[in-house]
Amino acid sequence: MNKIKLNKTRESNVSGYSKSFPTTFKYAKNDILIDDKDKEYLDFFSGAGALNYGHNNDILKEAIVNFLKSDAPVHCLDMDSVIKLNFLNKITEVILKPRGFDYKIQFPSPSGTNAVEAAIKLARKVTKRKKIVAFTHSFHGMTATSLAISGSQEMRHQDIPSQDIIFQPFDGFLGENTNTIEYISKMIATNGSGNQLPAAIILETIQAEGGIKVANEKWLQELQHFANENGILLIVDDIQVGCGRTGNFFSFERAGITPDIVLLSKSISGFGLPLSLVLMKPELDIWKPGEHNGTFRANNLSLCGATKALDYWEDETFSNNVKAKGEFIEKALKKIHENSENVLDVRGLGMIWGIEFVSGEMAKKVSKTLFEQGMIIETCGNMGQVIKLLPPLTITKSNLTKGLEKLQSVIHQVREEEILTY
Amino acid sequence: MNKIKLNKTRESNVSGYSKSFPTTFKYAKNDILIDDKDKEYLDFFSGAGALNYGHNNDILKEAIVNFLKSDAPVHCLDMDSVIKLNFLNKITEVILKPRGFDYKIQFPSPSGTNAVEAAIKLARKVTKRKKIVAFTHSFHGMTATSLAISGSQEMRHQDIPSQDIIFQPFDGFLGENTNTIEYISKMIATNGSGNQLPAAIILETIQAEGGIKVANEKWLQELQHFANENGILLIVDDIQVGCGRTGNFFSFERAGITPDIVLLSKSISGFGLPLSLVLMKPELDIWKPGEHNGTFRANNLSLCGATKALDYWEDETFSNNVKAKGEFIEKALKKIHENSENVLDVRGLGMIWGIEFVSGEMAKKVSKTLFEQGMIIETCGNMGQVIKLLPPLTITKSNLTKGLEKLQSVIHQVREEEILTY
Amino acid sequence: MNKIKLNKTRESNVSGYSKSFPTTFKYAKNDILIDDKDKEYLDFFSGAGALNYGHNNDILKEAIVNFLKSDAPVHCLDMDSVIKLNFLNKITEVILKPRGFDYKIQFPSPSGTNAVEAAIKLARKVTKRKKIVAFTHSFHGMTATSLAISGSQEMRHQDIPSQDIIFQPFDGFLGENTNTIEYISKMIATNGSGNQLPAAIILETIQAEGGIKVANEKWLQELQHFANENGILLIVDDIQVGCGRTGNFFSFERAGITPDIVLLSKSISGFGLPLSLVLMKPELDIWKPGEHNGTFRANNLSLCGATKALDYWEDETFSNNVKAKGEFIEKALKKIHENSENVLDVRGLGMIWGIEFVSGEMAKKVSKTLFEQGMIIETCGNMGQVIKLLPPLTITKSNLTKGLEKLQSVIHQVREEEILTY
Amino acid sequence: MNKIKLNKTRESNVSGYSKSFPTTFKYAKNDILIDDKDKEYLDFFSGAGALNYGHNNDILKEAIVNFLKSDAPVHCLDMDSVIKLNFLNKITEVILKPRGFDYKIQFPSPSGTNAVEAAIKLARKVTKRKKIVAFTHSFHGMTATSLAISGSQEMRHQDIPSQDIIFQPFDGFLGENTNTIEYISKMIATNGSGNQLPAAIILETIQAEGGIKVANEKWLQELQHFANENGILLIVDDIQVGCGRTGNFFSFERAGITPDIVLLSKSISGFGLPLSLVLMKPELDIWKPGEHNGTFRANNLSLCGATKALDYWEDETFSNNVKAKGEFIEKALKKIHENSENVLDVRGLGMIWGIEFVSGEMAKKVSKTLFEQGMIIETCGNMGQVIKLLPPLTITKSNLTKGLEKLQSVIHQVREEEILTY
Repeated sequence: MNKIKLNKTRESNVSGYSKSFPTTFKYAKNDILIDDKDKEYLDFFSGAGALNYGHNNDILKEAIVNFLKSDAPVHCLDMDSVIKLNFLNKITEVILKPRGFDYKIQFPSPSGTNAVEAAIKLARKVTKRKKIVAFTHSFHGMTATSLAISGSQEMRHQDIPSQDIIFQPFDGFLGENTNTIEYISKMIATNGSGNQLPAAIILETIQAEGGIKVANEKWLQELQHFANENGILLIVDDIQVGCGRTGNFFSFERAGITPDIVLLSKSISGFGLPLSLVLMKPELDIWKPGEHNGTFRANNLSLCGATKALDYWEDETFSNNVKAKGEFIEKALKKIHENSENVLDVRGLGMIWGIEFVSGEMAKKVSKTLFEQGMIIETCGNMGQVIKLLPPLTITKSNLTKGLEKLQSVIHQVREEEILTY
Repeated sequence: MNKIKLNKTRESNVSGYSKSFPTTFKYAKNDILIDDKDKEYLDFFSGAGALNYGHNNDILKEAIVNFLKSDAPVHCLDMDSVIKLNFLNKITEVILKPRGFDYKIQFPSPSGTNAVEAAIKLARKVTKRKKIVAFTHSFHGMTATSLAISGSQEMRHQDIPSQDIIFQPFDGFLGENTNTIEYISKMIATNGSGNQLPAAIILETIQAEGGIKVANEKWLQELQHFANENGILLIVDDIQVGCGRTGNFFSFERAGITPDIVLLSKSISGFGLPLSLVLMKPELDIWKPGEHNGTFRANNLSLCGATKALDYWEDETFSNNVKAKGEFIEKALKKIHENSENVLDVRGLGMIWGIEFVSGEMAKKVSKTLFEQGMIIETCGNMGQVIKLLPPLTITKSNLTKGLEKLQSVIHQVREEEILTY
Repeated sequence: MNKIKLNKTRESNVSGYSKSFPTTFKYAKNDILIDDKDKEYLDFFSGAGALNYGHNNDILKEAIVNFLKSDAPVHCLDMDSVIKLNFLNKITEVILKPRGFDYKIQFPSPSGTNAVEAAIKLARKVTKRKKIVAFTHSFHGMTATSLAISGSQEMRHQDIPSQDIIFQPFDGFLGENTNTIEYISKMIATNGSGNQLPAAIILETIQAEGGIKVANEKWLQELQHFANENGILLIVDDIQVGCGRTGNFFSFERAGITPDIVLLSKSISGFGLPLSLVLMKPELDIWKPGEHNGTFRANNLSLCGATKALDYWEDETFSNNVKAKGEFIEKALKKIHENSENVLDVRGLGMIWGIEFVSGEMAKKVSKTLFEQGMIIETCGNMGQVIKLLPPLTITKSNLTKGLEKLQSVIHQVREEEILTY
Repeated sequence: MNKIKLNKTRESNVSGYSKSFPTTFKYAKNDILIDDKDKEYLDFFSGAGALNYGHNNDILKEAIVNFLKSDAPVHCLDMDSVIKLNFLNKITEVILKPRGFDYKIQFPSPSGTNAVEAAIKLARKVTKRKKIVAFTHSFHGMTATSLAISGSQEMRHQDIPSQDIIFQPFDGFLGENTNTIEYISKMIATNGSGNQLPAAIILETIQAEGGIKVANEKWLQELQHFANENGILLIVDDIQVGCGRTGNFFSFERAGITPDIVLLSKSISGFGLPLSLVLMKPELDIWKPGEHNGTFRANNLSLCGATKALDYWEDETFSNNVKAKGEFIEKALKKIHENSENVLDVRGLGMIWGIEFVSGEMAKKVSKTLFEQGMIIETCGNMGQVIKLLPPLTITKSNLTKGLEKLQSVIHQVREEEILTY
């Protein structure tokens, strides 16, 4: 124990979640985490979206252990391996073909931000344009390009030599009744506006870090139309809300659009192993071999998990299940909204939901109290004022119910404590 | 089989090694890869340096499989977990303390380029300066900052909004007898030179992609002295040549220097799983919690491999073994050099060596012929003119001997074919 | 004559007005230019706004010739000279004090774009912020910073390493009934919008190159309020529409605002000699001596003209005269608008007015025909679709009437020719 | 007098020379300035090089006054005027043809920095490359691009978004015996050096602000050769040392090179009026009409002086006279060097010379004492350690002698005062 304490001081102060959730985890199974004092925590966080299929999912684990035992190559960069070809085959058959997509697939370095960097680089290469349109309150990662296009991180832009980024208002940002596509069109596509036509528009269809802002379907359709009309590539960063989080495999299926480039990471490996993908329309694939590389691209152990996880998408059962749970969450949250003066809004889709509080402080207190009571849930939003519900898609119905009840109870408790302090 | 062929067309054309080594791998063990036609390949490539301990190393594999079976949390971002604390403890005891280092450790996203991005960002934050000095023929990765500081990738700089990077001559770049530190000092630290004092100097002590250029120990010492005198942080990118590649754990130990920041990735997890580290002097750790994050930071399965792999460093046996093999390689290569007119130079250290040919074409032909004859070895250098020897550190003596003999034989064969074609 | 032809080919093709108005000018007096074939041209162009007091204004010329004859120093950079101190005294007494302004005065290099560069540099230095907000359809000049903030020149931004510029919608850009200040406030001053708070907002109160777009007084007031609330410096580029063009000395007097920085050039010397000024609130004057210099700053011959020209502002006569002529122009243009199907809009203030046509082609034809008929008038607007009326403020009433009648007649003529060609 | 004092406080603190030479000037003739207390000053400064032909040169003044009296157009932008065509004719016949040059001529805005901005923009447009090579200790002006390429101003680079500039060592910067062309070639033209081939190399053949550093003729030739071989445009900024300062009209004639682009300003108008020129090889003239404009381009009054001043170059008399005076200065300075322990070096060419002192303080004291004794001379160099001799080319022999004697005496005086204070 002594040693462990010592070593906590060895890690850089940059470590964040260890401060929000201050304990040491020892076991994890599906929707439950257990710490070194054997305290159980109900997981409404899912490793920030990387564990849609739960912790230590037995189906995936079996495949991974067998893979290891077989002495298949675990790491061989982008050399061809049996597992890579199997994965490419299965994602084609299970995901792409049924949805009418013909994307080619790139394996960049295995974190989401690398997929973002690759996509932006490709968009500039294809269009021979420089500018990138990004959105207010967006989040795309921490490497230089990704950070520069993350509206929600503007305070950190000064550390990076950002340029050629044009921020435009996300759906709803200018007020509920203002059509931001019209605004964007004028600001971007008018001769003399100062903003040259960009290479690409990059967006999350649901802004997660930004506070669970769900883009309207019509807005997505109009955005795609505007992009197409102007030779601008539409890039959907589906890293957090893809892989089934909204009920469908891709978050944009609801709008019937076909982005030019789609980015996946987080839950794509299924088991919490690092992997990221860039899906691109075939005509955009003008990369030269090795032009954008990275040591851990196409890591085979991750691909093993990813291949097995696609089983969940071979029929509608899993998807329907997620949608049903989503409706259950929605109903519960609307009730919470009605009964809680300190809740300004609830919003979301499928199994990603946000509860907006009157202040970041209150949201933080809710998260902290829930942690003390054995539940892990984080905050988001530009003031940290939103509680973000992100349980595993595989959460049991009883744990989901339990979690929502606990949430309601803590919200009321925090509200009452506040009243008392006045 | 048919399906597999189909899916090869599903992957983006960016895939590189699949074109250099055109087969499909099925098994891998230590220094041998086996393809789907059961052909064996001797591995002088080590997954580009990520497999210093060989493919499917049984010691590491056992630890990893047991970890998986135990239902320990595989992924929990930078929350504290038992395995993370164990790793921090072990690296402190086994690596840092014995070498007198007091580094704090950051876990950025798990590819090397993310570690580079984090380090540059930190250096700018600490020093409140903007410029970064990078070296001719360097390679640091593919995200925007890393690419901008990669001299060897200058043709791709136009795709990225690079700036604030000052390239300076690496040891030997201006000729063997020119002290580039004097040149750098004048160009960087003279009032009115146009180049403001930079935040950091980043370097590889042996430039791998750049063609196996080994920096002299005196040069490294003088560089550290120059940096210290001018308040410039010295960052060693030890991603490819750290983790024992040169015989010592860190590549810079031979020079007795203590960089301000050290970057590790590739072989740090031991098993080819994605992981990267930023080591920084404690006084530089001014990060705020969560200021540089990333979903797959501190991935626990990678940390499990990384912890176990440190066993190799508990005494001198492994290190001495690597050094001995290195001397064996050196001897063999010097003989090749003497006997081969088409070889311009051989150079290296420990178990990373380069053979420079008169042209990139010839080096490519050597690599291709070796592949046909069952050996995997890649080229590097600014014209692709260098064959890069990077066998697993755990290669058996007999396979090492066999590989060096095959290498010699193919070099002669290629030379003779060339003579015949004239 | 032969030699002259030869030398026309010696000048760079960059020469522009020589192509729009293809003749060689020999004499010029007030509102008339005479070419080398003794053809007279009525001047509705005023040297692009540098000749508000007319060509070879006798009052100013006498002062300038006397100055030359006296052997006063013509050029002594920013050393103190009698004429410089006289000018500073007179502008204080005649312009600043009566309007309640306490500006300090900087003499940058003598073209408008240098004043812009100095102002932006100062704003960044004072606020320690980097971003600059510029407007759609703006024009500020051709040096790197000025070009980067010129919305109307966006096609040329690719030649310059522009960055840190945020374009926002000018008054009216999003439609007549849309309050762009609300949009600007949301896009600039919302945490997480991606746009950090800027150092400055720079604007022309009437966009001249942009097509004679007159900012509403209320909009200007709200903009100043927004800037003040957020510690953003408000810079008015009054280079083209200051110095009496709108009736008042400064164009922004009508709105009752006090910009933090005001830029003057063009007509400030009175006589068409190069001079530019940066007026800044005293608390902003944190320049170090010589920090922003330039050989021809505070050129004494220009200052001689500038000092004399201030005589026009010692009482209201001149100003009232301009306003009366402005009303006369307005009336005439409104009639033209009513009677001309090919005219979409007329707009302006004081003695700067625009006539917007259905196409750039038609506006060009009007300008060309007027030139053939002895009148000089140029086009502007993002499609070149606007005829820009910019006569000397000293134009005689009869020439003004004549010019407006000729304008009306040519507009009709061009319209009829077009009908015939269908 | 009271008013004048008041108004000194009206000018921005940025005013520099008014602080170095704190008096108010009233008259000026050739090499003498007279202040408002009738004190005479011998001018070894020449308005920072803009008055090569002396103050109020009677020949030029007569032409200018006559021009004004004739009511020729003083300002008509780049419309053709009789005086502009006369100037183009005369510079062709008197300067270009006899030297075998075929340059086309652009009139940018009338300060030197605008010529620099235009040239860099053109070089990037022509070559489709982005990078610019500039030199250590260079000075090119204050607008964003010019400042970014001014090595001597590196401390101010942080205020500007500079990028794509590569600083390289000027002749002598790495020591007298080091050939910097070899270094430049390796750092710029080696594949993998990190520095892409640049659009242009810009240089002063004698660095004036940089401390009177004279580039060797062989170095200039090798630089031109290197540039030509690599498709890099060679731009000579001859703003301060052209127009006869070195004895020849252009400073680079001594080396027999033909730059691709030449920049002139300062003394080109002859009379201290603002004017600047870009001379470019005809094949580079790919500007579109109006693509780089500016209100005061081709100002006719400046062109009138410029045309008349070319008279000085119709035969060798003036040039020979300058060279003879230059030799006289050289002899005097070498003697000073021999006799003064506090003088480290004297260097120069024609009529621009520098005396390097052991410290900036001492140089400043020399300048200050000379001012008190009625002589104007400024300091330069990266530490302000160099006294810069820049008398009018038309200085009388007796005033030149007087000035040099006074210089010698003050240097000794300052030296003795220093010894006394120890």
